[in-house]
Order: sequence, then structure tokens, then C-alpha cells
Amino acid sequence: MTVVQSNGVHKSLPSALPLVQKSTKDHDLVLKTFRLLIADLCQQFGGGHPGGAIGMAAIGVALWKYVMRYAPHTPDFFNRDRFVLSNGHTCLFQYSFLHLTGYKAMTFDQMKSYHSDRVDALCPGHPEIEHEGIEVTTGPLGQGIANAVGLAMATKNLATTYNRPGYDVVSNHTWCMIGDACLQEGVALEAISLAGHFRLNNLTVVYDNNQITCDGSVDLTNTENVNDKMRASGWDVIDVEDGCYDVEGIVRALEQARGSQEKPTFINVKTVIGLDSHVAGTATAHGAAFGVNSVSDIKKLYGFNPEEHFVIGDAVRQFFKELPARGEKWVQEWDQLVKDYTTQHPEIAAEFQARVRGELPANWQDHIPSSFPEKPTASRASSGLVFNPIAKEVKSFMVGTADLSPSVNMIWPGKTDFQHPDLRTNCGINGNYSGRYIHWGIREHAMCAISNGLAAYSPNTIIPVTSSFFMFYLYAAPAVRMGALQHLQGIHVATHDSIGMGEDGPTHQPIELAALYRAMPNILYIRPGDSEEVAGAWIAAINAKKTPTIISTSRHALPQLSQTRRDAVARGAYVLEEDESATVTLIGVGAELSFALEVASKLKAEKGINARVVSFPCQRLFEQQSLEYKRDMLRRHRGIPAVVIEPYAPNGWERYANAGINIKRFGHSLPGKAAYKFFGYEIDNLTSKVAGYLDQLKGDEYLQSEFVEL
Amino acid sequence: MTVVQSNGVHKSLPSALPLVQKSTKDHDLVLKTFRLLIADLCQQFGGGHPGGAIGMAAIGVALWKYVMRYAPHTPDFFNRDRFVLSNGHTCLFQYSFLHLTGYKAMTFDQMKSYHSDRVDALCPGHPEIEHEGIEVTTGPLGQGIANAVGLAMATKNLATTYNRPGYDVVSNHTWCMIGDACLQEGVALEAISLAGHFRLNNLTVVYDNNQITCDGSVDLTNTENVNDKMRASGWDVIDVEDGCYDVEGIVRALEQARGSQEKPTFINVKTVIGLDSHVAGTATAHGAAFGVNSVSDIKKLYGFNPEEHFVIGDAVRQFFKELPARGEKWVQEWDQLVKDYTTQHPEIAAEFQARVRGELPANWQDHIPSSFPEKPTASRASSGLVFNPIAKEVKSFMVGTADLSPSVNMIWPGKTDFQHPDLRTNCGINGNYSGRYIHWGIREHAMCAISNGLAAYSPNTIIPVTSSFFMFYLYAAPAVRMGALQHLQGIHVATHDSIGMGEDGPTHQPIELAALYRAMPNILYIRPGDSEEVAGAWIAAINAKKTPTIISTSRHALPQLSQTRRDAVARGAYVLEEDESATVTLIGVGAELSFALEVASKLKAEKGINARVVSFPCQRLFEQQSLEYKRDMLRRHRGIPAVVIEPYAPNGWERYANAGINIKRFGHSLPGKAAYKFFGYEIDNLTSKVAGYLDQLKGDEYLQSEFVEL
Repeated sequence: MTVVQSNGVHKSLPSALPLVQKSTKDHDLVLKTFRLLIADLCQQFGGGHPGGAIGMAAIGVALWKYVMRYAPHTPDFFNRDRFVLSNGHTCLFQYSFLHLTGYKAMTFDQMKSYHSDRVDALCPGHPEIEHEGIEVTTGPLGQGIANAVGLAMATKNLATTYNRPGYDVVSNHTWCMIGDACLQEGVALEAISLAGHFRLNNLTVVYDNNQITCDGSVDLTNTENVNDKMRASGWDVIDVEDGCYDVEGIVRALEQARGSQEKPTFINVKTVIGLDSHVAGTATAHGAAFGVNSVSDIKKLYGFNPEEHFVIGDAVRQFFKELPARGEKWVQEWDQLVKDYTTQHPEIAAEFQARVRGELPANWQDHIPSSFPEKPTASRASSGLVFNPIAKEVKSFMVGTADLSPSVNMIWPGKTDFQHPDLRTNCGINGNYSGRYIHWGIREHAMCAISNGLAAYSPNTIIPVTSSFFMFYLYAAPAVRMGALQHLQGIHVATHDSIGMGEDGPTHQPIELAALYRAMPNILYIRPGDSEEVAGAWIAAINAKKTPTIISTSRHALPQLSQTRRDAVARGAYVLEEDESATVTLIGVGAELSFALEVASKLKAEKGINARVVSFPCQRLFEQQSLEYKRDMLRRHRGIPAVVIEPYAPNGWERYANAGINIKRFGHSLPGKAAYKFFGYEIDNLTSKVAGYLDQLKGDEYLQSEFVEL
Repeated sequence: MTVVQSNGVHKSLPSALPLVQKSTKDHDLVLKTFRLLIADLCQQFGGGHPGGAIGMAAIGVALWKYVMRYAPHTPDFFNRDRFVLSNGHTCLFQYSFLHLTGYKAMTFDQMKSYHSDRVDALCPGHPEIEHEGIEVTTGPLGQGIANAVGLAMATKNLATTYNRPGYDVVSNHTWCMIGDACLQEGVALEAISLAGHFRLNNLTVVYDNNQITCDGSVDLTNTENVNDKMRASGWDVIDVEDGCYDVEGIVRALEQARGSQEKPTFINVKTVIGLDSHVAGTATAHGAAFGVNSVSDIKKLYGFNPEEHFVIGDAVRQFFKELPARGEKWVQEWDQLVKDYTTQHPEIAAEFQARVRGELPANWQDHIPSSFPEKPTASRASSGLVFNPIAKEVKSFMVGTADLSPSVNMIWPGKTDFQHPDLRTNCGINGNYSGRYIHWGIREHAMCAISNGLAAYSPNTIIPVTSSFFMFYLYAAPAVRMGALQHLQGIHVATHDSIGMGEDGPTHQPIELAALYRAMPNILYIRPGDSEEVAGAWIAAINAKKTPTIISTSRHALPQLSQTRRDAVARGAYVLEEDESATVTLIGVGAELSFALEVASKLKAEKGINARVVSFPCQRLFEQQSLEYKRDMLRRHRGIPAVVIEPYAPNGWERYANAGINIKRFGHSLPGKAAYKFFGYEIDNLTSKVAGYLDQLKGDEYLQSEFVEL
């Protein structure tokens, strides 16, 4: 057993794994039983994805019986190997092995719930993180392999931070299955490149190379040399020729991969989709049940009774029987290790245990400045003022950027980069695996997808923080969505969130993007208006243990407003300037919040109109308030119209406002101030528009029943 | 000159290019002048991206002076070489060469408009397609190289379709500049893989290899062997060691690339970012002006007067002077060629000319069935019924799918695949470059980004049609956006658009995605409710010459409704069932349109409530109608509340409805009908909710002023 070095490069190898059984007789029966189980499970309701799961049978036996370290009766064993099914549509592969290896929740009946109308089924069409034994939700192709990179990075970071000589409290390996599709998706290609760069020798990707996708053979769309491409990307490559039967060969490859001292490993396993069915080796085997006759034929071929379904014989049960006990032994060994570690290294052990529990230090909020300089400050700079002191002290946060370090202000003094310790860069900035600042490169999508893996390692043990321009969270959107769907805490710091970002122009001005994130379930999209509200946004984000947050900030300097309150951000909207005699409510948001205040002043001074001002940083948080709070905030039920000022598409504001000064076209490349002017966001013009609208309302009784674009 | 073969593999080589001038003295002066011009242009307003443009100076001279075929005075010359600046932030590189080579719009004053507050500037922060000499809008990294793949595919398709022996009416080459960043973006990696697969020997990517990104040196995030990776992906690779000065070497590499008979070419050119500035070779040179002193120092180093700015000497003017005339000669040669071709091949030439003009055959609508079978039909199937007869006959359409051929129903009888003619696939489906059906692989983002390139080749000459599951248009969203921004017609056929798609579960159920596309400028998001509305959606999409469209369809069978009208879809919303005594308007949409009709019946029959029903397939088209039409449609100003029924996030519907039966959480994996039931979309329940809401309204006068979630 190699002791983990403090640089996290070398790793311990498990000593307690069983030798692979040479007997192919046992394997033969297990493989046949497994394949028929898959065929039956799809035939049951006449749908699903049988082909891939059947082709991967031998890989599954190698993984679950011989190679992976896990504990079916303690599914959340902290130091377990992580398994990711990136080709999530083959979920029956995983469900069936969860059943066979003894996961308690995956009863025989539950396994049969695939494609049923059972509302509490544990076998949805793609694996879901909520269920026992599932590490991440997969399905959208390419996400899983990126998650796996994140899981492997989490191990490296925790191991290097917390392991001590003789006490490898974190030493797990990450295994990821992929199909032909994942190798085509951009997010996977970005993640592969990063895994090679970071030299994640604790990551193994097993490629179910069946050369079939929905449209036909892979060579319809992909004729590259995948092994050469992986090698060029910094991976070791191992070929397995007979992936349908050669359990022993697969185990050898997997063990070699686990032992890799330098690189992540790509195991290219040749398989046959839908093996032994009448559609074996064709696209037809991918996404449809085989039909009663074909399933019956396979049973006959295998010497099974075609009249019997879902048959798992005693010998097969016996084959997997030892696994729960084996798992519990590993759990006990680890518990003892951690006990001894706690005795030997009480201080670091206490911190480690808190991380395992997903706890932050009780005083984390104390690091946030209680006040801010009065000078106008870009909210992207405020974000650094608020968060960097926390990031410096609290190891739970791993903070990265998609190559926008100079723009996002996320570097804290003395930060260490997450890098392989031997890397010597041309710019002289190096790091090691205990580093918590991550240069993701220009890979926004992988940044967020890998961050989901960091977050999924164990609840709140690592809280990933990503950063980029807001517009590029459209590149990352599929991964941001997967984080929200999985209830993974993650904080996305998105600067340049307004036409005020200026010269970069319409490709970078996020007119419509907020509409997506305001509609997306389980995510907070917060646009703070000054440093104080930025503090509130961070507090809300860090408190959201099961919800990701986008903190949306400005490139340009914003005035510090005396009326803003960090505690109020958590309510989504609050009164910035009250006026009981107001005839209009102005809604201000984020970078343009001060506009609403200025317009209110001018309305009073020049038009004799009293206006109240509501700051509205987050629609989702506001929605969570009581009906009473919401009505009292907006006062539309009292016949006081509300006007929102935000240079975004209006979509969604119709719920809160009667009229809006918004933008329904793409932006324009101009310096920030000129861009505001071009789109009419000058105080005089805004004031006239609001006053004009109030006049118009007097003349048209219908107007208040519809949203008016000013 | 090689004659283009009918399979489009071999290509003609230009005969009229000048030999590269051996004199490095001329080049030296031109390069210095160019670099100083860039430095001055950034210094002028104290911002911008000088470093990359300066490093690429010699590449620019090689391209514009010696290699590219284009006509500055006829910028839209059909057979011009296409140039794409994928690293769009270096736009000054292109703007300055457009000026130097004689593009009329790019006057000296206009060139100096970069970062100015001039509203009509031709020098926005990233190149924009609207402006003379710009082929595609770039900026979001990775998009440009994917566009370039599309431009090269367009050439292959048009050449193979229309060229005849001796008449290479389409023979242009596509050149694409990229930086280190584009090689990291997933969309670029997807596109690179496809370009290799399609063996696009008419595509050359020039890699400005300066090894610097915003965060520092590239090896912070990328240490792969890029040349090996490109070779593994099916590309030829040429290295140029001295990219800052060796114009001749670059020209040789470019000419070799143009002559490639087998593969696309990747030219790896070593350069120095911000050459000769005090920040040369560092990240600081990337995105900020150098400062007055540094610019002055470079001028002194170069023997220029530090007090003079924007100096373009006579010798430099002379160096580029011949280019407009050279271009016009090529234009004239091509005009003559087309004239002779028209004489020799009048029929195909007439079709070619119509394509050049971007015209469809006058009778294209005749191919759409005038009626549909009465049986319930999935709208994805209806989509095939409507469009496949058009696709079969009208060559303007290039139709592809991200590996979902069996799901999207876009294959017409006798379709030919777009493939290299020598490809022999394992599944036996082959093709050639005249093919118009494209297997994109599992690469949704590249599918749409490359399709933008197909569309950008020349206005409406090619109308790309993409297809996938609706949810995966989130992967493609950055490219869909770029199509909308550039006013490129493109049609995206998005099936499985509802929780009704069933078992695939929450990862595939697009709860919030419509909110994005309904907010995005210049795109139509249409959800048709049955075959008749699908016909209307296609007609609207094909008529939208400057706007992309998403046609959003169902996986599951929908009833054919007697009241639907294809012509009415163009108005966005229309009355499906009128009732002058109605006390409520029900808004039905897409796959759930029939629910609204059923609820209306039940309300009348069981609750004595009269309801009218509005079909609302497209918010954007509805917005374009007159205020009168809109008010009359919704009747909210008459105090009749509207209730929308759609299993999506409600965001945006608040504009049109007083209440909604929508979904604000992620979906659930259940068979389609069970999923509808799980979320309460059963007719009884919907009916009760509407009736309950109407009751509630009576008791709460405020309720009508706010959107109510039922």
C-alpha cells in the first residue's frame, strides 16, 4: 500500500480486493442472467434502452464484483469509490447491479419499476442523485464524464488537504462509463482536456465502444482516432478487445487504471450493443424493447425457460452475496482509520469531520466587511470585497474562473491554484492539489459541469464557485440546470451583466438570459445594486444549501446607496424609498437600481409626482415570501401601478409591474454610458416615460389591465 | 487548374494569385505600420484588445495580400473566399486590413471609430455581419470556427450540386483565424471533429499560437499536444515557427493548405502577443491599451515619430493598392464564367442563379398537404408530413439532426446524406457532398453553430434545418442566439417539448426553456397544437427570411382539432372557439391545446361556465399584431380573465393571462399520461381549478390585478 504523499500525486491502492475468479462458468451464467433481466425489464412495458446495458454486462461484473470499493448497506460511505454512468440512458445497467449487489432500497419490485407509472419509483428513465447508490443525475450526454472529473478533483483536493502519513482518510477512485455519444459532446471534450491537464490518475473512464448511436454506426459522424486523441489529451489508453465476455481482461485493465501514477486512464472496451438479440450490433437495439419473440429467442439460446421472466437464480445471488459484508468491512476499517487519525491529528481531524458533515465554520459571516467604501464601485469588485476574505479562510470553497481572473476579482491574497504539483507554467504561477483556485480555461460549460461533480462528492463538503461573464452562462446553462435539478449548492459569479458593460457589444450583452434563470426551477438569480446588496447576495447564496445561485454583477462602477440593506436581499425585494402618498412604484434592479432612485427624485422635483422605490434583486426569493408581504411590497392591489426599469427583455416582469422600460432587441456596441443613452436609459428620458405613462393611464382605463412597454 | 469533379472532392486552384514578394523590406514596413496602427487605435480611447491583432500582423499580410481571393469593391462577390475571425476580440486585425485593402465603407475615420461613442460605427467590439467585409459575427469563443466549417460545407454542397466540367461556379476556400481560446471551447472541438470527418479540404484554420489567455500562459489550463489531437481528428497540420515575421513561410503554408486534396488543414503559427510592446508575450497585452509611453517607445523602436498617430505611409498604401483592381478582375472572370455556364447549362444555371438570389421556387407551399389524416398524430410526425415533401424538392434546405433521426421524422424518401463520397460506413448508409441530410452526431451546439455558417454563406441560399429534442436546444442555445443576432434564417425542429414526453424524466422535460426563447430577440418560438398548426408553423418559419424559428413539437400523439387554421398561426394567437357570453378565456398551447378545448366543454357542461378558447402558438408573432387585434383576442380589458394552460414555467404568460396552470419545479420520470396526471393536467382537475379561480375572483377584488398560479 503506497502512502499518499502530501502532494496528492501518489495514491494508496486497496489491499482487500478479491482476486478475479478465473471460472468463466460463473461469469457466463451471471452475464446471461443480467442480459435477460435487462431484456425483460424493457419488454415489461414495451420501452426503454436495453442495448447498451446488455453490451456492458461484463464491464459491470468487473466493476461491482471485483474492482469498485463501495458498501451497499452504507451507500453514503464517505471514502467509497464513485461511479458515474455518463451514458445515463443505460440506467438499467446500474439499477440492476444495485439490486444484485444488495442495495437495500433497490428491491426486486423497485427494480421492476422502470418505465412503470409508479410515482415513487427508484428507476427513472435516467439515474437520479436522490436515489441510493446514484452519485449524480445523468442523461444529457457529456455531463456525467465532466461530473466524474469533478469527483476526482474533489478526492485530490480533500486527500491533499486532510491525509496525513499513514492516514489516507480520503483515497477513493472515480469510475465513469461513457458511450460513443459522450465522446462527441463538447462539454465532455472540454472536461477530458482538463482531466489530462490536471493529471487525474484517480479517474478512469470506461468507454463502451459499441460503435452505434441512434442514427446508425458511429462512422456516420465520427471517424477520428479516439485513442490517439485521448493520448494527445494526456490520458493513458488501454484497449480491451472482447468486452462482452472477458471479465478477467476488463478487471486487469481496471486494476491497471487504478494503479496509474501519472495520468487518467481511458479504457476502450469493444462491445456489442444488444448482444444476442435479433438486433445485436445495430441502432435498433438502442432505444426500444426487443419484442416478445426476440426476448424469448435469447432465453432459448441461453438455455433459460422462455416462459419465465426476471429470473435470478441462486447461483447468481450467491455470486454477489458477499458484497454487502465486504463493503461493511471497508466502512469499519475507514471508521477505525478516522478514529486513530482523530487521536493523532485532533485539530485537522476536527476540521475534516466538519467538512464531512458539510458544515461551514460558525463564524463565516464575520469575514464579510460590515461596511464598504463610499466611492462608486463595480459590483464585480464588491463581490471580491465580500467573498474573498471568506474564500481565504474557509476551505469548503473551491473557486474558479473560465479564464477571466482579471475581470471577476475572485483572487484572494495568497491563493493557491489547484494544479498538479509538478506543473511548471510559463507564467510562473504554479500550485498543488490542495489549491482551491481553479483556472478552468475557456471552458464555461465544463467549468459548471465539473463543479457539479465537486459539489456531488458529498453534500456541502465542497461548495464550488464559478465565474465568468454573465452572457457565457448561456454556454454553461445545461450544467447550471443540472446543478439546480440535483439540488447541488454552487455559486456562479457572473459579471458584465448589463448593456452597461459596453464596447464588447451585442454578443456579450445579456438581454434575454435573465429570463432563463428566473424561470429555471431551484436556482436563485440575484442582481445586487451596490456593495451592501452584494453582501446580501453572497449571504443568501451561502445559506442556500440545496440551491445554486447566480450572483449577477456589473462591469462598471455603481454608486453606493444609503438605503440598501444586506439582510433585505434574502426577501427578494424590499422598499428602498417609501412614500405613502406615492402614485407609482418604481422597481429598480441591480446595476440600474440607482436609476430608479434618481427618477423618483426627478418625478417629484419636476413633475410633482410622488414615487416609491422598490429594490428587486431576486424574483425567486420574493416569490417565497408571504402573499401579504408581496402585496404590501408592490401595492398594485391598491391601484398604484408599478414600473420596472431594467435593460433586459421584460419577460417575467409582467407579474410584478404594470409597465416596463426594458429592451426587446439585441444590444449595441458602445461605451457603457453611450450604450445606456442609445437605449434611452438616461434619467431625463426615463422620467418622461414614467410621467407619460401615468398620464396615459388617466386617459385609458384599459391600460392598467395590460403590461405596457415604455 | 484542377477541374472540380462532380463529387466535389478535388478542387480548382486559383491561377491568378501573385507570387509572394521576397522583399522583407516592404513587409517590414507594412508590419510595423500595421502594429502601430493597432496600438494607436487602442490607445485612442484607452481600451480594446491590441495584443492578438499585433501578433497576427504577418498572417494578415499573407492572407489579404497574397492568398485570399476577394474583391474589396464587390464585397458580396459570390465566389469570394470566406474569412472568419473566430477570435473576434482581435477585430482591429480585420478592420485594419479591410481599410488597407480598400473596402469602401471602412474609411480612415470609420477605422478610428473603434471604442468610440459613434452610433453608426463600423468597428464594434467584435466583428458584425451587418458590416461590409464581415462574413459572420463572432465574439463568443468557438462559434467562428464552427461557422467556418459551415461555410466550407456550403461550398462543397453548392459546388457539387451546380458545378459542371469546366464551369467551377463555386470554388471558394474558407479561412479561419483562431486563438488559444477557441481550441478549448466545446463547440469548437465538436466542429473540428466534424470537419475532419467530412474531410473538408477547402477549410483552413490558422492558429494564432501565442500561448497566452487572460489568466496567463495557456499551460495554466491546457497542456495537451494540439497538433497530435488535430491529426487524430482527421486534419493535416503545418507548423510555422516564425509567425511574427515570416510572411513567405506563412504564404507557403496557406498555399499548401489551399491545395490539400484530402483533409482540412490546421496551420499552427507561433506568434508573440503584443510584439514589441513592454507587455509582449504576457496576458497584459491581451485586453488593455499599452499606455502612451509604451506606444511611444514602440514608435521609436520602429523609427517612427512618436508624436504622430495613425500613420499609414505612401509605401504601405502602395503595397495594398492593386488589391481592389485584382478583386474586380476575379469578379469579372466569374461573371463571364457564369454567363458561359448559363449558355451551356441553361436549366441548372437558372436554378443556380435563383439560389444565388436566395429565392425559393414559387410553388414551395404546394408541397404541403392541404389536409391531414384525422387520426391523432404526434406533432413531430406532423412536422415530417408537412416539411419532408418540401425538403425533397427544394434544394435550398439542408436538413440535419443531432443523432435523432428515428425521433425527429425529418428523413424524406430518397434523401442523400452529406458525406465525403469515399466514406463507406459500417451501417451501409453513404452519401456525397450534394447530399442535404446531415448526421451531426451528438453535437447539438456545433449543429447549430455550423448551421449558422451554412446560412451565412449567402443570404437564404442555404436554409439550414436542425433537429433534436427541445431540451437539447439548451446545449445549442449560444449558437441559436448567434443566428438570431445575425438575422440568419434557420429552422430548428425541436421534439419532445413537454412533460408528455414521459419516461426520460426531468433531465429531458423542458420546463423553463421556452422562457428563454420567448425572451430572445429575433426568433420565433412556435408550439403548434396539431398537424394543421404544424403546417402554419412551417409556413411562418419559411417566410421568416431574416429570423430563425424553433418549431416545438410533441413526442406523443395529439388529437386533430377541427378548429385549427394554418393561416392563423402567423398571427401568433387566434380564437379557436368563440363565445360572446364567455366569462373566461382559456389559452391553450401546443401539445396541450386540446386540454383547453376539453376544459371549456366541461366548464359549460358541469359548471355552467361559458369559456372561449384561444390557441396561442407563438408569443412573438402575436406581439407583432396590432393593439386592437391583441386586445380583441384576449378581452382582458373587458374584465374577462384569461387562464393559460401550459406545463412550463409561467414566466412571460403574465402578460397575456390572469392566471396559469403551469409548473415551477423540474419534471418527473413517468410515462407521458402518468406525468400529466402527476402534475395535475387531467381535464377534471384543470376544470376544477379554473372554476375555483373564477369563484375566488368574486370574493377577492384584488386578485385580478395579479397573476395567480392555479
